[in-house]
Amino acid sequence: MHGSEAKIRVRYEETDKMGIVYHANYFQWFEVARIQFLDEIGMPYKGLEEDGYFLPVLECTASFKMPARFDDRVSIISNVGFQSPLRLYIEYHVFRGREKLAEGSTTHAFVCNQGKVIRPPDLFTKLVK
Amino acid sequence: MHGSEAKIRVRYEETDKMGIVYHANYFQWFEVARIQFLDEIGMPYKGLEEDGYFLPVLECTASFKMPARFDDRVSIISNVGFQSPLRLYIEYHVFRGREKLAEGSTTHAFVCNQGKVIRPPDLFTKLVK
Amino acid sequence: MHGSEAKIRVRYEETDKMGIVYHANYFQWFEVARIQFLDEIGMPYKGLEEDGYFLPVLECTASFKMPARFDDRVSIISNVGFQSPLRLYIEYHVFRGREKLAEGSTTHAFVCNQGKVIRPPDLFTKLVK
Amino acid sequence: MHGSEAKIRVRYEETDKMGIVYHANYFQWFEVARIQFLDEIGMPYKGLEEDGYFLPVLECTASFKMPARFDDRVSIISNVGFQSPLRLYIEYHVFRGREKLAEGSTTHAFVCNQGKVIRPPDLFTKLVK
Repeated sequence: MHGSEAKIRVRYEETDKMGIVYHANYFQWFEVARIQFLDEIGMPYKGLEEDGYFLPVLECTASFKMPARFDDRVSIISNVGFQSPLRLYIEYHVFRGREKLAEGSTTHAFVCNQGKVIRPPDLFTKLVK
Repeated sequence: MHGSEAKIRVRYEETDKMGIVYHANYFQWFEVARIQFLDEIGMPYKGLEEDGYFLPVLECTASFKMPARFDDRVSIISNVGFQSPLRLYIEYHVFRGREKLAEGSTTHAFVCNQGKVIRPPDLFTKLVK
Repeated sequence: MHGSEAKIRVRYEETDKMGIVYHANYFQWFEVARIQFLDEIGMPYKGLEEDGYFLPVLECTASFKMPARFDDRVSIISNVGFQSPLRLYIEYHVFRGREKLAEGSTTHAFVCNQGKVIRPPDLFTKLVK
Repeated sequence: MHGSEAKIRVRYEETDKMGIVYHANYFQWFEVARIQFLDEIGMPYKGLEEDGYFLPVLECTASFKMPARFDDRVSIISNVGFQSPLRLYIEYHVFRGREKLAEGSTTHAFVCNQGKVIRPPDLFTKLVK
């Protein structure tokens, strides 16, 4: 498994009337973390799509321990691996400083632009392993 | 100009920590109103796209008088017309009951799937006039 | 467990460049379904908050079988029950016609406006059981 | 008028099925730019709210020249001034490299936590002038 750390700052728009970040918005932070991980292994997602590889989300989960609030600086640590040759699994751990706020996961298939499941590029598999 | 009325119910996600609807979300309500107007004149937007007509937003404005809040039932009255043969202009008036909350506008061009400006379908122009 | 059915229509804003609904947006639909369920048992969420009961999300999951697309009419069936006296669990099943698109869940605590976990109103517990 | 430059990277979630950034999302970028401007003059928005000053949006506009796309690095230049002693006006210019993509504006009042219009802190007025 590979690790990566992304940093975001909480936007006002992401809060709700409870004064905390609306839960669904964490999945956008997970996206930021995932995109950055792909940059770091040298396989930026934009390039993957240009080469005909799309990574839709098959499953996603999140569990919340402490609320994030407006203007918080938040780190998202991601760990990436393969569940099977065709299934990418990413875990996310969300921190404000040393305080754990949340964790979650996404599972992805590689599909072509017709939506059919395809094998990931060999280089990708090699880089993640 | 043609008129239409769409009704939405404010979602929790649309609120922010001020306890009111975040201003940018009104543009999604304007979209709901616009889509419904196109249904009502018999030119649903999905069909327009299938026929190769896309209506990106060129300009948008909104002005806010009273905040909308979670769970409010809100009406969006839209008035639609052409500013020029190639430019569609829509005004929106947002109400909670008889109380005016906001108003706004969007301006659209018709473009093909290459992004080039094209003339709207004649039937569309006729139906709007 | 209690059931309820909510209906939504996919907004353009909810799609992404893959041409399908971005996964995180399903959680907003789950919110719509949850709010409607609470209406149907006579305990609207707005009233719960006014009485000092907030229901933040502790955990959420979703799993996607088929993509939803712009303008789809989608039904969300929710089933609601208690996992423990202090933990509300809701399952969501998302359909386009008879075709299952996705399913998911959210888990909630009841908290007061200070964020402390509290017991749900007795009437609420009774109505859900 | 004061200037500031914020940088963002376009998120996948911000795109729509046209393959471009959905227009309403520019207003979230304007928020990012506004927050950063307030940091730079030493009056962070979080602190303003803690001192009882809220800045709801009274009006907002945007006009789009070229679409922003997934993964674009975008700069938002903001210019901030007072329209009147009680009305803050901010202009935003959105660039991808040297290419202008869009421009827009927001107008704000200062209100207290009861929603009543109040005078901005003297220091704020002095710093913006």
